[in-house]
Amino acid sequence: MVRRFTHVIGFDDAPFDRGHRGDVPVIGAVYSGARLEGVLSGKVRRDGANATRVLAGMVRQSRFRAHLKLVLLQGIALAGFNVVDLAGLHRALGIPVLVVVRKRPNFERIRRALLEHVPGGARKWRLVERAGPVERCGNVYVQRAGITPADAARALAALSVSSNLPEPLRTAHLVAGGIARGESRHRA
Amino acid sequence: MVRRFTHVIGFDDAPFDRGHRGDVPVIGAVYSGARLEGVLSGKVRRDGANATRVLAGMVRQSRFRAHLKLVLLQGIALAGFNVVDLAGLHRALGIPVLVVVRKRPNFERIRRALLEHVPGGARKWRLVERAGPVERCGNVYVQRAGITPADAARALAALSVSSNLPEPLRTAHLVAGGIARGESRHRA
Repeated sequence: MVRRFTHVIGFDDAPFDRGHRGDVPVIGAVYSGARLEGVLSGKVRRDGANATRVLAGMVRQSRFRAHLKLVLLQGIALAGFNVVDLAGLHRALGIPVLVVVRKRPNFERIRRALLEHVPGGARKWRLVERAGPVERCGNVYVQRAGITPADAARALAALSVSSNLPEPLRTAHLVAGGIARGESRHRA
Repeated sequence: MVRRFTHVIGFDDAPFDRGHRGDVPVIGAVYSGARLEGVLSGKVRRDGANATRVLAGMVRQSRFRAHLKLVLLQGIALAGFNVVDLAGLHRALGIPVLVVVRKRPNFERIRRALLEHVPGGARKWRLVERAGPVERCGNVYVQRAGITPADAARALAALSVSSNLPEPLRTAHLVAGGIARGESRHRA
């Protein structure tokens, strides 16, 4: 049976200055097919540990909670090193979670940064490891929770209508950049 | 010759509480055809007089300034009674400006509110009057500066793919609501 992902939310964080401390805005863009249905906003702590809880709360408190079939993340961490627990988010919401990135991440560099520079880095590195291998999926790379490679490929093909990135992530990126900088930047 | 409006920006303001004083966020959503190209953000004063200048500045400072062919506004005033000078904005940017609303506004009520309750209301009422008559245009109502009724109808028909409102205004509304309230509301 082919699973269809009609209602999809894509999350991205706003850009911030190197020296910034504290909260960073997070935007969720909800699509039903090709149509933008809504925009959610929240905040996660820079280099913090609350990303999983905040994203789950944003979805649960929205009017879309009963409709959403898939969560897309632009990278496994928000606001620097606030790493998302993919399996935990999948369990909390009961729907698949898919990390989508343009380039294969350099995990050795991430591991070293986490272990050497980030408070709670060992726990965060375990979250990255537990999110499973990074897999090629069409023109992008993914990590998955609660969704098969075939379903992930199908969902991304249907959602990526005007770039390599699925529209919910592209829009979340444009909105997050636009509210933080006054103008969105080019590429998600 | 048929004019084509490939790059279009739609502006909407964020919702605010009755008692709110000061600035109100304004969002601009830039489309190229059916594709969201960028998001701009700015601020205008509640019941103030800076909307025309702020909108012109947001467009001029954006990387889209050379491409934009049409400005859409959701109503002639932002942030309460911060009335836009349609002809002035058209002159400042050199591109057409089109106000689009779902319902025919009650101008007698607006005139009274401006003249009786709003500082500088006489000048603001003149701006509303000078924006010209409200005309039916397909399923919505418009006021125009620098664009013929036929071109306005053609532009709105091309841009209104998933509701009576053109996508740039629908998206600006969803973003403005989402950042102000944490969640966008249903209808623009």
